[in-house]
Amino acid sequence: MSVLKPLPFTAVTIADRFWAPRQRTNSETTIPHELAQCRSTGRIDNFAKAAGLMAGKFEGIFFNDSDVHKWVEAASYTLWTHPHPQWEAELDEVIAKIAASQQAEGYLNTYFTLVEPDKKWQNLGMMHELYCAGHLFEAAVAHYQATGKHTLLDVACRFAALIESTFGHGKRDGLPGHEGIELALVKLARVTGEARYMALAEYFVTRRGHSPSIFEKELETPDLPGGLGAYQHHFTRDGKFEGKYAQAHLPIQEQTECVGHAVRAMYLYSGAADIAYETGDSSISDALELLWRNVTEKRLYVTGGVGPSGHNEGFTTDYELPNVSAYAETCASIGLIFWAHRMFLLYGESRFVDVLETALYNGALSGISLDGRGFFYQNPLASHGGKHRHEWFGCACCPPNIARLLASVGQYIYAHGEKDLWVNLYVGGTAAATVAGDVSLKLTQETDYPWEGDVKITVTPETPVTFALNLRIPSWCDEFEAHVNGEAYKPHVNSNGYLSIERHWHTGDTVELALAMPIERVYAHPLIKENLGRFALRRGPLVYCFEDVDNPDGVFQTLSLADDASLEAAFHNELLGGVTLIRGAGTVLNASDWGNNLYLHAKPNLKRTDVTAIPYYAWCNRGAGQMAVWVF
Amino acid sequence: MSVLKPLPFTAVTIADRFWAPRQRTNSETTIPHELAQCRSTGRIDNFAKAAGLMAGKFEGIFFNDSDVHKWVEAASYTLWTHPHPQWEAELDEVIAKIAASQQAEGYLNTYFTLVEPDKKWQNLGMMHELYCAGHLFEAAVAHYQATGKHTLLDVACRFAALIESTFGHGKRDGLPGHEGIELALVKLARVTGEARYMALAEYFVTRRGHSPSIFEKELETPDLPGGLGAYQHHFTRDGKFEGKYAQAHLPIQEQTECVGHAVRAMYLYSGAADIAYETGDSSISDALELLWRNVTEKRLYVTGGVGPSGHNEGFTTDYELPNVSAYAETCASIGLIFWAHRMFLLYGESRFVDVLETALYNGALSGISLDGRGFFYQNPLASHGGKHRHEWFGCACCPPNIARLLASVGQYIYAHGEKDLWVNLYVGGTAAATVAGDVSLKLTQETDYPWEGDVKITVTPETPVTFALNLRIPSWCDEFEAHVNGEAYKPHVNSNGYLSIERHWHTGDTVELALAMPIERVYAHPLIKENLGRFALRRGPLVYCFEDVDNPDGVFQTLSLADDASLEAAFHNELLGGVTLIRGAGTVLNASDWGNNLYLHAKPNLKRTDVTAIPYYAWCNRGAGQMAVWVF
Repeated sequence: MSVLKPLPFTAVTIADRFWAPRQRTNSETTIPHELAQCRSTGRIDNFAKAAGLMAGKFEGIFFNDSDVHKWVEAASYTLWTHPHPQWEAELDEVIAKIAASQQAEGYLNTYFTLVEPDKKWQNLGMMHELYCAGHLFEAAVAHYQATGKHTLLDVACRFAALIESTFGHGKRDGLPGHEGIELALVKLARVTGEARYMALAEYFVTRRGHSPSIFEKELETPDLPGGLGAYQHHFTRDGKFEGKYAQAHLPIQEQTECVGHAVRAMYLYSGAADIAYETGDSSISDALELLWRNVTEKRLYVTGGVGPSGHNEGFTTDYELPNVSAYAETCASIGLIFWAHRMFLLYGESRFVDVLETALYNGALSGISLDGRGFFYQNPLASHGGKHRHEWFGCACCPPNIARLLASVGQYIYAHGEKDLWVNLYVGGTAAATVAGDVSLKLTQETDYPWEGDVKITVTPETPVTFALNLRIPSWCDEFEAHVNGEAYKPHVNSNGYLSIERHWHTGDTVELALAMPIERVYAHPLIKENLGRFALRRGPLVYCFEDVDNPDGVFQTLSLADDASLEAAFHNELLGGVTLIRGAGTVLNASDWGNNLYLHAKPNLKRTDVTAIPYYAWCNRGAGQMAVWVF
Repeated sequence: MSVLKPLPFTAVTIADRFWAPRQRTNSETTIPHELAQCRSTGRIDNFAKAAGLMAGKFEGIFFNDSDVHKWVEAASYTLWTHPHPQWEAELDEVIAKIAASQQAEGYLNTYFTLVEPDKKWQNLGMMHELYCAGHLFEAAVAHYQATGKHTLLDVACRFAALIESTFGHGKRDGLPGHEGIELALVKLARVTGEARYMALAEYFVTRRGHSPSIFEKELETPDLPGGLGAYQHHFTRDGKFEGKYAQAHLPIQEQTECVGHAVRAMYLYSGAADIAYETGDSSISDALELLWRNVTEKRLYVTGGVGPSGHNEGFTTDYELPNVSAYAETCASIGLIFWAHRMFLLYGESRFVDVLETALYNGALSGISLDGRGFFYQNPLASHGGKHRHEWFGCACCPPNIARLLASVGQYIYAHGEKDLWVNLYVGGTAAATVAGDVSLKLTQETDYPWEGDVKITVTPETPVTFALNLRIPSWCDEFEAHVNGEAYKPHVNSNGYLSIERHWHTGDTVELALAMPIERVYAHPLIKENLGRFALRRGPLVYCFEDVDNPDGVFQTLSLADDASLEAAFHNELLGGVTLIRGAGTVLNASDWGNNLYLHAKPNLKRTDVTAIPYYAWCNRGAGQMAVWVF
């Protein structure tokens, strides 16, 4: 097990034609749009009301605070990447309201303060107090890191201290029904150096799933806040309580299958990975390895989506990955990125980054429109045409989640150990790192990734220095070449999946990596029923899909690529913000060939047609049409 | 429009190796088995209790009488085909209990007599009094026709007279929620010559769907029998009443789409066809033609199943024909046979018999096991292995329905007009008919249908006579030859789909018809989503399916027939009661080729395998395994 650290978002500048425009749109459109939504839906006012700064009742859903906290986190990252005095003032104003809503003892949750002040901490299973607290902590850490200001961090610490003095071994038994606070407490502990926050995170991770069940006990509370109905997902159809919905069925060390609500699962596993990282507890990391294998070998969409079912917003059974009805919540793919990142930091293996990259470029990125103001909650892999993007949701977890992901994507590109440097994602821009203990170094990436696989890295150490530059060779890449200062470097991919270039580096040394990026057909495991007889297209990190707007001939769902089709990839600057299209020959069926027949004996005529595929992330940006990832 | 009459079951003797053994099993196993089930579930005792012959409460579901009536109908037909003194005595005993349960005024329904005697006729929409009455009438007619006894017919007529004096124009407004009484009243009218029963049938057919809605008005009844909950299917999700569930949304003349509960729909359309037949009302037959086109062009399983959804036990939308979740109730296919038969009698066109034959040999026949004591309520076109047959059901409409169909299948084979004769089904045996007005004739069919397409018909008129023998050329048959007395008869299929052989017939004249019966691949309309890229096998009237027990290699659902597979059909006497198997070369995928991968870039290895298909009707007779009609 290796223990690596990411280069933080503050050490990375993105300057490319893929992520940089997205971060700009995020800054200029999404962040203001989401603040306006938080304002118009009363989410900001809830804090002012809880602070006594204005009159009125709590508005919206009981966990709406978390949306504001996530927005604060996103806005904070964005202030670092795109400083803007007006937005800094707006952010400070929101933070002031959050701070003002904090109660004397440190408690901060506008729903309970305004609606059920006497019922705090009574329904941890469903009422999301600890979940909202976690998002507050993450926001506070981001705000502090991005601006150096303590305003929100102090608020967070006061609340964390209250929670820490309330729950834990020898104190009150308690657990979040919706996880998230675990990884947030780890962030808070790292920033503040407060070991007690780390200990509380460890308590939350390791107390979960032990008998007697905290949640079952809670059900005996008379007049439970939110009512018993809120607990419905914790019951089986025959009325038995079971903890799988919230991953509370077994201690984390004994969990082997990804179950229940997918976002909760991803956040728990992320927090557990943090604890394994901090404590070296192999019983936790071993369980996480089994969970990772379960999801990646049996329960993962090709897009990096997880959680196929809308019923529990989560996992079902092995190989059950329907396309049209796929839930695959945007937040779940984002959570998978969090978890994958932490697994990489624990193990140092590129297989985790392969999944991170897939989710990032596909199942998560599909959650936001190109113009930055349209969102998906679900990310299906096929649509019969009824699916469209929304400006906001009643339960608005996804929009600020994708905003904070985009704003902080820099933190996933690089990592470093005590001596060496890792390049995980190929994104043009610069990074500042320290290698070999104490040598500062600037690294520049030039690449047109994900459209092309050529990457030029220039290394500028403050003084010549020996270290290994570890370049991730993606699992999708079967062939590559590398040159160091123009000379062929004998490719050798180590068992962790990296091309490790260890040498004495001088200022201006260059590495040129050429990753072959052919169009690939992807075939699904035959137990995934809906994909039988079908394949998907993938090029580099991008999964492709077909939309009827590009493929208007015949019955869309009969679209088929000729077996011998010589597919071609070409960049089109004018389309969908600039995308590489895949085009080729295919066939389609015409319903009119059937006349009035429902069944024909004759083999149907295949009409030859030109077929066009676009990156999956870009779908549903030209109206609500039919879409398919898996075709014949 | 032609107006034809069937040769009744009493005029037809079946002697072949397909239907004759089935009728024998029906007589020896199914009829006794179902009587035992009716007894052990209190269905027979309910009549004794209502008659005051024994003490005790009503047992079971409120429409359980109808199962007994259907059993009486089936047993009556069977007494004709397989006379048996013991069973005749048992039948008489059941009939005596039914008769004894009749109330003084003629009313007969054990649920209302025993449970809600003051609430008769108050919830016609859901409580099935008129539906049960209809099955009583059908039973009475069959019993009279088979045995010449009036015992049950008199009971039926007394009840019919009560209903006729209660409901109708100028009397009380009323309609059956579950149709069936319409066609039953027509049968009763034909047997008794009572025009008022025919008029009541016409009233029920033509009153339906007019405003104000009888069912909507009923909902205002205080303390509705069965309660409001029973009405749930009559409401849309937003609580609006709409009559589609029971085909009461529009007058029959304005209905163009098959909607709602499929069995109800089939029974209504059958009764409407009877009324069109009797009255010549083209506004009804024109509507039936549109309904027929809707179901056969857009809403029919390849097996002759109808009603894909379990939610409403009925129809949904065009082309929505899922395989695994197919409801396709056995009773609905039987109802389709009833309707198709009446459409043929109205129009004289073979296209109706094509559908009748498909439903008979596939979607209806699949409803009973080969041993005659296992039943399907639903008849899916694919199974992942969870589906098995039941000895009986709480709601047991299907078992006695398939029993009465099998026992009376003779009536679907032949028809006659004033002068001519029609052969619709190819079934070995004999028939007695009258042609050219008054010439008696015996007809003998020798054939191994459905296994082979060769049919030899021998005509034995009491005196030489000129008439047309109309032989149906099935729509599945693209090539055929005919010989009359050994000489080639120039094939000419008329616009009604028949080879019409008009000549002066002498005793011993023979017609030899050779219907080519190749194995055909059937392709579904491309808007039927689940069948995209797949085909089904059909040979003659039989649709085939694949079971995992015959195809154990690899992942069953990836079973694929090689494009160039030379499929072979061969009869296997020892298997499944004797079936023609289709065998050929195919491929299958092995899950193990995926290792731990969920997705592969390489095209999967297709493992060559021998593929075996069995007739669809014979599936699930060797345990509950995986099955598929549509394969790649």
